[in-house]
Amino acid sequence: MRILGIDPGLKLTGYGVIDSRSISPALVAGGVIRLNARASLSDRLVELETELEGLFDEYHPDVCAVEQLYAHYKHPRTAILMGHARGIILLVAQRRGARIEQFAANRIKQSVVGHGHAGKSQMQRAIQSLWNLKEPPEPPDVADALAIALCCGRFIGQKRALPA
Amino acid sequence: MRILGIDPGLKLTGYGVIDSRSISPALVAGGVIRLNARASLSDRLVELETELEGLFDEYHPDVCAVEQLYAHYKHPRTAILMGHARGIILLVAQRRGARIEQFAANRIKQSVVGHGHAGKSQMQRAIQSLWNLKEPPEPPDVADALAIALCCGRFIGQKRALPA
Repeated sequence: MRILGIDPGLKLTGYGVIDSRSISPALVAGGVIRLNARASLSDRLVELETELEGLFDEYHPDVCAVEQLYAHYKHPRTAILMGHARGIILLVAQRRGARIEQFAANRIKQSVVGHGHAGKSQMQRAIQSLWNLKEPPEPPDVADALAIALCCGRFIGQKRALPA
Repeated sequence: MRILGIDPGLKLTGYGVIDSRSISPALVAGGVIRLNARASLSDRLVELETELEGLFDEYHPDVCAVEQLYAHYKHPRTAILMGHARGIILLVAQRRGARIEQFAANRIKQSVVGHGHAGKSQMQRAIQSLWNLKEPPEPPDVADALAIALCCGRFIGQKRALPA
């Protein structure tokens, strides 16, 4: 089962693609969609849609995983802008018929690092170590997106392992 | 010049279409897009996209006007969810090549009622009175969307009237 994890943003949107298998998950791809910071919000949303369509064309994910919304944000304006990008992600995933899964931020960290309060560099090192990468994934948005995909893969694996 | 005003929401999205002319603006259409409250967020976003495409097909607006984002909201979670819907609106408008204009909430009220702190029923009565409607537009989302379109029409008219 192929999982696309996405960490939405209007400057950088991180993505990570993994194949969830019975033994250990395989790393397929990771990267960022960089949107033109000088373009208007609406131009960037169209750009994001086009780039996401490209990811679906290239990797054909079965599942698209994103972080859950939470009720309180330090920067409400940034959170609302992120909501615009998240809307485009859910739209494209739904149109493509992908199953959509959402996970709380602390659960994603717990799943990858072992506790729910890991910082960005800890997440990067955990991802580096898991796949024996030469360097930690940069920028941190790539590691975050891969962590979302990993958390999703484990969640789906656990559900499969439960007795019917 | 045809203006489509939109008041985004994930339950109700109000829309209003006017023709901005030199004498007085003409009312073309007003209504709401009702999204299936039992459907998932991503399903509703696809539904919203389809309905918006339908409005662009039917009315061919030159301009799409929405309320500006503001920094503080009473209900951050609702505001972020609204951001998802607003993202879809900006995406569709941009893809359709419409000019996008944004106005602060108090400026919209000022433009229609004469001061920036009007309530919902005041906005509805102002719209009713302007076009001699038998009843105030219902639900209030329709009046709000028409008010956004009106504010936009006046803004564009003023810019035209300025000496070059």
